[in-house]
Amino acid sequence: MPDGDLIREIAARVEAFVRDVVVPYERDPRCGTHGPSDALVREMREKARAAGVLTPHILADGSHLTQRETAVVLIKSGLSPLGPLACNTMAPDEGNMYLLGKVASAEQKQRFLAPIQQGIARSAFFMTEPAEDGGAGSDPSMMKTVCRLDGNHWVINGRKAFITGADGAKVGIVMAKSDEGACMFLVDLPDPAIRIERILDTIDSSMPGGHAVVTIDNLRVSADQMLGAAGEGFKYAQVRLSPARLSHCMRWLGACIRAQEIAIAYACKREAFGKLLVDHEGVGFMLADNMIALKQAELMIDWCAGVLDTGSLGTVESSMAKVAVSEALMRIADNCVQVMGGTGVTGDTIVEQVFREVRAFRIYDGPTEVHKWSLAKKIKRDRLKAQA
Amino acid sequence: MPDGDLIREIAARVEAFVRDVVVPYERDPRCGTHGPSDALVREMREKARAAGVLTPHILADGSHLTQRETAVVLIKSGLSPLGPLACNTMAPDEGNMYLLGKVASAEQKQRFLAPIQQGIARSAFFMTEPAEDGGAGSDPSMMKTVCRLDGNHWVINGRKAFITGADGAKVGIVMAKSDEGACMFLVDLPDPAIRIERILDTIDSSMPGGHAVVTIDNLRVSADQMLGAAGEGFKYAQVRLSPARLSHCMRWLGACIRAQEIAIAYACKREAFGKLLVDHEGVGFMLADNMIALKQAELMIDWCAGVLDTGSLGTVESSMAKVAVSEALMRIADNCVQVMGGTGVTGDTIVEQVFREVRAFRIYDGPTEVHKWSLAKKIKRDRLKAQA
Amino acid sequence: MPDGDLIREIAARVEAFVRDVVVPYERDPRCGTHGPSDALVREMREKARAAGVLTPHILADGSHLTQRETAVVLIKSGLSPLGPLACNTMAPDEGNMYLLGKVASAEQKQRFLAPIQQGIARSAFFMTEPAEDGGAGSDPSMMKTVCRLDGNHWVINGRKAFITGADGAKVGIVMAKSDEGACMFLVDLPDPAIRIERILDTIDSSMPGGHAVVTIDNLRVSADQMLGAAGEGFKYAQVRLSPARLSHCMRWLGACIRAQEIAIAYACKREAFGKLLVDHEGVGFMLADNMIALKQAELMIDWCAGVLDTGSLGTVESSMAKVAVSEALMRIADNCVQVMGGTGVTGDTIVEQVFREVRAFRIYDGPTEVHKWSLAKKIKRDRLKAQA
Amino acid sequence: MPDGDLIREIAARVEAFVRDVVVPYERDPRCGTHGPSDALVREMREKARAAGVLTPHILADGSHLTQRETAVVLIKSGLSPLGPLACNTMAPDEGNMYLLGKVASAEQKQRFLAPIQQGIARSAFFMTEPAEDGGAGSDPSMMKTVCRLDGNHWVINGRKAFITGADGAKVGIVMAKSDEGACMFLVDLPDPAIRIERILDTIDSSMPGGHAVVTIDNLRVSADQMLGAAGEGFKYAQVRLSPARLSHCMRWLGACIRAQEIAIAYACKREAFGKLLVDHEGVGFMLADNMIALKQAELMIDWCAGVLDTGSLGTVESSMAKVAVSEALMRIADNCVQVMGGTGVTGDTIVEQVFREVRAFRIYDGPTEVHKWSLAKKIKRDRLKAQA
Repeated sequence: MPDGDLIREIAARVEAFVRDVVVPYERDPRCGTHGPSDALVREMREKARAAGVLTPHILADGSHLTQRETAVVLIKSGLSPLGPLACNTMAPDEGNMYLLGKVASAEQKQRFLAPIQQGIARSAFFMTEPAEDGGAGSDPSMMKTVCRLDGNHWVINGRKAFITGADGAKVGIVMAKSDEGACMFLVDLPDPAIRIERILDTIDSSMPGGHAVVTIDNLRVSADQMLGAAGEGFKYAQVRLSPARLSHCMRWLGACIRAQEIAIAYACKREAFGKLLVDHEGVGFMLADNMIALKQAELMIDWCAGVLDTGSLGTVESSMAKVAVSEALMRIADNCVQVMGGTGVTGDTIVEQVFREVRAFRIYDGPTEVHKWSLAKKIKRDRLKAQA
Repeated sequence: MPDGDLIREIAARVEAFVRDVVVPYERDPRCGTHGPSDALVREMREKARAAGVLTPHILADGSHLTQRETAVVLIKSGLSPLGPLACNTMAPDEGNMYLLGKVASAEQKQRFLAPIQQGIARSAFFMTEPAEDGGAGSDPSMMKTVCRLDGNHWVINGRKAFITGADGAKVGIVMAKSDEGACMFLVDLPDPAIRIERILDTIDSSMPGGHAVVTIDNLRVSADQMLGAAGEGFKYAQVRLSPARLSHCMRWLGACIRAQEIAIAYACKREAFGKLLVDHEGVGFMLADNMIALKQAELMIDWCAGVLDTGSLGTVESSMAKVAVSEALMRIADNCVQVMGGTGVTGDTIVEQVFREVRAFRIYDGPTEVHKWSLAKKIKRDRLKAQA
Repeated sequence: MPDGDLIREIAARVEAFVRDVVVPYERDPRCGTHGPSDALVREMREKARAAGVLTPHILADGSHLTQRETAVVLIKSGLSPLGPLACNTMAPDEGNMYLLGKVASAEQKQRFLAPIQQGIARSAFFMTEPAEDGGAGSDPSMMKTVCRLDGNHWVINGRKAFITGADGAKVGIVMAKSDEGACMFLVDLPDPAIRIERILDTIDSSMPGGHAVVTIDNLRVSADQMLGAAGEGFKYAQVRLSPARLSHCMRWLGACIRAQEIAIAYACKREAFGKLLVDHEGVGFMLADNMIALKQAELMIDWCAGVLDTGSLGTVESSMAKVAVSEALMRIADNCVQVMGGTGVTGDTIVEQVFREVRAFRIYDGPTEVHKWSLAKKIKRDRLKAQA
Repeated sequence: MPDGDLIREIAARVEAFVRDVVVPYERDPRCGTHGPSDALVREMREKARAAGVLTPHILADGSHLTQRETAVVLIKSGLSPLGPLACNTMAPDEGNMYLLGKVASAEQKQRFLAPIQQGIARSAFFMTEPAEDGGAGSDPSMMKTVCRLDGNHWVINGRKAFITGADGAKVGIVMAKSDEGACMFLVDLPDPAIRIERILDTIDSSMPGGHAVVTIDNLRVSADQMLGAAGEGFKYAQVRLSPARLSHCMRWLGACIRAQEIAIAYACKREAFGKLLVDHEGVGFMLADNMIALKQAELMIDWCAGVLDTGSLGTVESSMAKVAVSEALMRIADNCVQVMGGTGVTGDTIVEQVFREVRAFRIYDGPTEVHKWSLAKKIKRDRLKAQA
């Protein structure tokens, strides 16, 4: 783990803020089933700003922490499911900021990135499409949303699904296919041409705005709102891909560290059959398994982050990390629920929520199976190359 | 599997009713997050009554199907999470009816059992207690709720937790400890001495009334409302235990059979990376695993039911079945979610709910670990006996 | 489980014989690493004959027990890895007897089947081929061994691998491809045209003659030694397939029942950290898991056997049983090894051997993955049919 | 991973030596079932000496590589099960050298350590005892072997089991209990007072001399052969414990890396059902799982090594690493076997042996359950401390 003084200090500040200020909000009724309300987010962010922990992974001079450093900070922000919202380290904004930082023009940064970075605007990434349309899910080549140039505007049509945070977002990044290939556009939201059909009822509930299904109906975007160049959309998606995947791992690792703390506290207090739960090997072994798995998740994140820090796209490594971490976190969260018995399946602690969140995480940013599929291709490719 | 004509006919009728009449209610907003409303239950039960599938496991002459026969019917009622509510085969009523059928006096049956059996009253079983009080969870010997005789009334004091369906129930079975040992009482509900503190936010959402925390404050019960004899409460709990455990297995097996159907339909329609999902081994193998596990669950239930049908309490066998079936159903439900990708974590199908329900099932009626603990004791006991 | 008096009596006799007479041979040096010697097999079979337990699943009148009855008997014969050899219920002979009983002509039965059934000749089934040749493994369509008619003889050429028991066998069933399709031939062994290249060093060690690689070099077989008709070879393979698969499940279930007994005895005697191993939940839970899994394996075998007894080929059901049982037995055997600590990885008990045998079983008669692949096909087929 | 030029160079030399020189010996008949013969070891070591890769983790000046550096080198030496024997990085010698380097007097180092380090003597560590005696296995407090002072000699009596390499060793470290507590003694071997009762038949076969059961009958040892001080035996065992555990992880990780290479090569060449095995997701996913698990094992070893390099005993961390790595390697080896089908369970490649070796590794140096037990204690201890 990186251990520069600055990073240590930022991480400590974020941890203290989350534990002291954010955790009490976990019982706030504004947490909602489709994600916390924007009012709640605003309230927490004001406190974060005051505490100097808003957007803590981007420094005052605009520079971004390295990925290894980011990990140290984002894990701490994740100690509460509300922490990333409070600190502005949440998805999809964190990934969107990263992408815009890399690809946007100076004007685009000023107009679209700055407000996100300042924590006064939320953003959404319009990529995946409804399964019932046969649209793009894990396989981006199936994208059906189209864009065509009309004078100095682009006109976009299609439907998108699982658009996290679309409801309430101020900034949108919309992906569509032109004759030249995939394109990305920056748009101000809300826009009447982007109609929210419905907010999906999903098993997770941590993301403001929830996950929307939207219709894009003749959305007109000025040509200078194109992100980068036409036809390069998949390339930019690649830039965002690995860091975004990895930051999910970071935040949910934080949440599982906290779930483990809660489960340990419970097991060290609750008795059954004549002794503390923790003294039952059946319980103690689950906690020991978690202890090991948490460490492994941390190491895997640090390793992958180190690869990204070399400048590599890290597609293979982030697939490895995503599978390893998300599957490990599921077992950890599941163990925590089980250790806590009946209490584990109630909202009395965040353990129940963390379990639900991690279940969704095993699917978004690529289901486990899609990553294994691409790793198997890589294995074959490397073998054939070695033979040649 | 039993294959008498009568059972086959009942099961077919229940299946048709659930598929045709109940399934459409799954999108009804009255399904609620703390369980379906009683209005919805009443509406479905009227249709069930008309279709001749209300309380289908108890015949017109009051006789109860054998456990093996019950399994065939209850699995079908479980094809929708709403099915057991519609058909009155749900927990805790099904177990309560079974218990009263075995232990209640004729007068008690008339007063308390009949309305449950007719589907016009719901019931609740007041046994487990709050963990924060150090009360009875999986270990019934920790019971803190007490009763004492005061003239020809019993006076009961204590707190109870996870009391499924207490909110809205008409009949309660309350367990408390007297000097002579555990006792059970039949009470009319609501009763001001049984105060509902709150309904827990739980991961499951199929049970009307949800799971309540209640305070019992000087509840006075006439002596003739004692179920059976004083001090025999744990014995009666044993009578209820195995069949109730097993009927959970039956209903949730039904739900997972349906989840598998939904996942198969999805995998045979949705494409990714150039072919149908089902043609990806990564998906097809999950469905094959489910196919095997569903069969194993069915066999385990049938076997355990057969043991109960011999008159055995089946404590060991129902522990084995509970562990095997609940853990298998979790894997099945998890696979179904995964196969369906993003759609799997939404409420667009019941797969997401089934996943949450089965998570809770791995804890209620004894967490997996408690059953393994008692099986290990049994293994040791048998070995020492064999050596003696 | 079938419970006819006759079957119960046969099974009891087999069990007593295996436990009393066969088990002591487990320490016999003739057990060997490539499988027990024929001298040892002969010696045990004489005792089996005397005890009336030789080929116990085929009655004096030549009739074969039903598959459900066979299961009851074969499980008992499997209580020792040597039991099936002693009782002549072993692979591949058991499957070969079954096949010849179904397909061979009267003359062929007299000449080839009778000596196997009498336990005086061993047989081998020449089907799979070397991977290095790209020959038939799990995919029989890749068969490279060929046969062609030359007058009233067939001439066979090819190589075969994993030919269990070829070394020492008196009877061979050889599969080869003609212009009309796959054919099967009955041959007397040894034959100079069937040269044993080597006996493979395999992880298992229970089968006399081990597993051979053989070259078939211009083997000439009289036309009347063809089993059934030309081109029907795969059909006959299907006849043998499911019962042979299932009888492996039966025998290894028996072995794992015994391994569990040994592990329990150890855990109820050996202490560590202040108490008996069995009193450590970490150990007791493994034994409880085994207890459940053994029951599930038994139920799955009984169910599949019942399907075969209806006259069905049971291809799907035996795939399901093969996967479920072999994978469960692996976990069981692995747990037994682990419970016994250092002793578990030594030859001081059969637990270590059972672990090795079951590892191989997860591959032969179709690796788990091949079965899942075909089950996934079945799932798709059924879905498409239901939609049509 | 450490990346100093020196370490990289040593590791590269070791890798080249193992791949080019050692691998061909894998088919040498002297590999044996109780471990390779000393003649074979001598022959390989001469070549290692010539190649400058004998005892590569101890430099010419007697200094020991750091643990993180050692990992890089030992993983390479493990690419063949014979590699550690050839390079003198094998157990128990590697751990014994480490212990003597830390605790032995100058004279003891000269007499006992030097010949081991030079690769001309093998050593054995006499600690564990027969289960049938109720002796010390995982719980060292159960030690029954005793020593008492008689003039300026110690007299030792007892029995030991699983004494790896005792047969053929020149140097022994014997542990026994005195009135002052546990003691360790250095002895020349063979010694008539240390009688080898038998070499156990074990599932593994990589260690020269196998695993012996020995009787120690009035062994007299000069007082100056005591290692360190009387009563400090367990403390010294702790010094040896973590690095020895970890070096097992290193070597077997190397072996599993190689097993994966073999499985990949097979899957990229062998076809079934119309395509290469690797193109079947059922196979490709197993290889992808392995790819991830191998990386996790490497990271866990590096992390734990880093903790040891700080001077910590690393008891907790090495328990975590031992469990994580040994269980992961088992799954990896099992997958490799499965990918290779029939070939996987034969000795035609080392995959089958690696599977057997890793099975034993899950038990020696503390079974998984013992480590989890001690981790659970640690979790409880930390929680109670935090509360205080």
